Amino acid sequence: MSFAAELWDSVQLIRQRAPLVHNITNYVVMNTSANALLALGASPIMAHALEEVADIVAIADAVVINIGTLSKSWIEAMVAASSAVSERDKPLVLDPVGAGATGLRTRVCEQLLATATPTVIRGNASEIVALASATRGTKGVDSTLSSTEALPQASELARIHRTVVSMSGATDYVTDGEATIAIENGTPLMPRVTGLGCTASALTGAFLAVSSEPLRAAAQAMAAMGIAGEVASTRAAGPGTLQVHFLDALYELDESTIRERIRVQL
Amino acid sequence: MSFAAELWDSVQLIRQRAPLVHNITNYVVMNTSANALLALGASPIMAHALEEVADIVAIADAVVINIGTLSKSWIEAMVAASSAVSERDKPLVLDPVGAGATGLRTRVCEQLLATATPTVIRGNASEIVALASATRGTKGVDSTLSSTEALPQASELARIHRTVVSMSGATDYVTDGEATIAIENGTPLMPRVTGLGCTASALTGAFLAVSSEPLRAAAQAMAAMGIAGEVASTRAAGPGTLQVHFLDALYELDESTIRERIRVQL
Amino acid sequence: MSFAAELWDSVQLIRQRAPLVHNITNYVVMNTSANALLALGASPIMAHALEEVADIVAIADAVVINIGTLSKSWIEAMVAASSAVSERDKPLVLDPVGAGATGLRTRVCEQLLATATPTVIRGNASEIVALASATRGTKGVDSTLSSTEALPQASELARIHRTVVSMSGATDYVTDGEATIAIENGTPLMPRVTGLGCTASALTGAFLAVSSEPLRAAAQAMAAMGIAGEVASTRAAGPGTLQVHFLDALYELDESTIRERIRVQL
Repeated sequence: MSFAAELWDSVQLIRQRAPLVHNITNYVVMNTSANALLALGASPIMAHALEEVADIVAIADAVVINIGTLSKSWIEAMVAASSAVSERDKPLVLDPVGAGATGLRTRVCEQLLATATPTVIRGNASEIVALASATRGTKGVDSTLSSTEALPQASELARIHRTVVSMSGATDYVTDGEATIAIENGTPLMPRVTGLGCTASALTGAFLAVSSEPLRAAAQAMAAMGIAGEVASTRAAGPGTLQVHFLDALYELDESTIRERIRVQL
Repeated sequence: MSFAAELWDSVQLIRQRAPLVHNITNYVVMNTSANALLALGASPIMAHALEEVADIVAIADAVVINIGTLSKSWIEAMVAASSAVSERDKPLVLDPVGAGATGLRTRVCEQLLATATPTVIRGNASEIVALASATRGTKGVDSTLSSTEALPQASELARIHRTVVSMSGATDYVTDGEATIAIENGTPLMPRVTGLGCTASALTGAFLAVSSEPLRAAAQAMAAMGIAGEVASTRAAGPGTLQVHFLDALYELDESTIRERIRVQL
Repeated sequence: MSFAAELWDSVQLIRQRAPLVHNITNYVVMNTSANALLALGASPIMAHALEEVADIVAIADAVVINIGTLSKSWIEAMVAASSAVSERDKPLVLDPVGAGATGLRTRVCEQLLATATPTVIRGNASEIVALASATRGTKGVDSTLSSTEALPQASELARIHRTVVSMSGATDYVTDGEATIAIENGTPLMPRVTGLGCTASALTGAFLAVSSEPLRAAAQAMAAMGIAGEVASTRAAGPGTLQVHFLDALYELDESTIRERIRVQL
């Protein structure tokens, strides 16, 4: 089966099953992440109270932890959710927003990685390199290294943690340390919309929920993001209209659009 | 006076008076709820610090409590705001997001209901049934039961708490346990936009602020939501554009649009 | 150099340097503030953990503190960030949302003003008057006084704290207590979009990051806001579409649009 056919199958499964994706994510992107999951056909839930995260993990089909806006009680909830995930063997996505930018963020990632192995770690090049080296800094939540330059460290990170690393950039790379999938979809305007990386992490959760192959599922999520972004950019005059049309494009995503636009190297 | 005329009167009153609606609501929908209130003509304020909720309640024309994203300090603020409301006899809306999905959410609802009787409880069928029975679970914040199936339990809940229950669904029902108003407005795309239920709760607060009849006011809010959603859907290609045009439609809402589109059964 | 030329210079500098603007802001506007900064060309970061605010201040080019949704731990973080700013002499914007509406908000502003002198205080007339007098109340986050009526108190506040006060309204005024710049750009629809005042504060941070003249930088930010709002209003049918086109207009902002539309009195 071609990658396009696989992606289309997964989109159809998401729309049929409406998997429940539990997000413990940052304040900035909660609304847009929930909207992207709904537009794709998944069912989002946002919950972070220590008293209920394990209950939510229990009913969720995938869990997404995003450290974009941390504080003490949220860190506790993230650790508790990670524990619950590891006991129940659910798909888990970790988005290490700003890892390397502050000691706190890097430490929290290390704590989370020690609690449960994520099915997928999804970040930009700086964040992935920061996790791999736990030494370098990032400028805000932007990437200063290209994803192609950071690929060796992404592979290394995947091997160390026996996980899949999904690294966004001009080219997105998804790797398990052995096989690598490169996704060329997307448009330069996408980084001008806040939280599209975080949205990619949320959608990765939805694709993991309907797939038993994390490497393929993570790549499908990035391709769906990129294709929806391309479709949106044909209707957009700037980042404001792009964000709105991006949600429409996820909602409308169909087989012919996928086949026409897909640019993936396996 | 026809229901359409009543609704139009209330919209005009909201635009004239710009009632201050105090929202203690979830992170996901704060922005969209505030925007919907502003678009309709009301004045939103979001505040949750224990140190100031009573002061905000004192100057507010209506209070809306939404438990979508809970944590310990927020629960304390919700209880304090409920106490302040019951002392001052202000309109209060409770949106029991995800009631039944976790023990925490159901318990918090029970605690809030014991502190102050809401003027209106507004939720989807699962949440209403969960509150009525305090036994069943919901899947995330989506409804698994139709609103028509859940109507007997909505009526029961209204009677138990001597309040009005406003239950959204394919048909929206507003009931005080005796009289019931059914609202057929809306479009199937609306549930694909996150937080439109929460927005309905916020707008219910605005309508309550200009009305002394909670049953009618709650039904007016649901009708205004549904009509604005229908107008938006004529301009929208998907959930992204729907959300944007929904705000425009609330802003533009006029007498002739209401008269043409209203589908209410008293 | 004309004010239009200065503004265009600053916009170009922001696009070249992508200054990192650290926002400790309210939940309602985090997404829209980040998007406005990205659309303009700046690099936003939102962070409020006590454990990392000083680290973020250290790498930021400007810091924006907005008290729109307070709680105990956030107040601590704001004070810590203010301390870090005063040690490092970075540009600091204070947005005193709702000052005067509750004792808590006024007290927090006083505490922040005692910790570090903001480079710019940016608020509406009610908030500025509340800070100046520390006696009057505001209705929610709306202004009840016109900016023109409040100008004497804005000047007084600027002189007391030896800072620049940027006060939004039908006419925006930016004053250091001696010189005053009046900006007539903008459209009446803008106050119907939540958080555009907060967005103005965020953009003020970006302009301060590329300028050594706070009075001019603050005025440039208000002019950029107003011009983008005007361009957006030519494409918008209401507040929903206005918000989206506003981001596009910031992204597209060019020299000729600035020259055609600028309405500033120096």
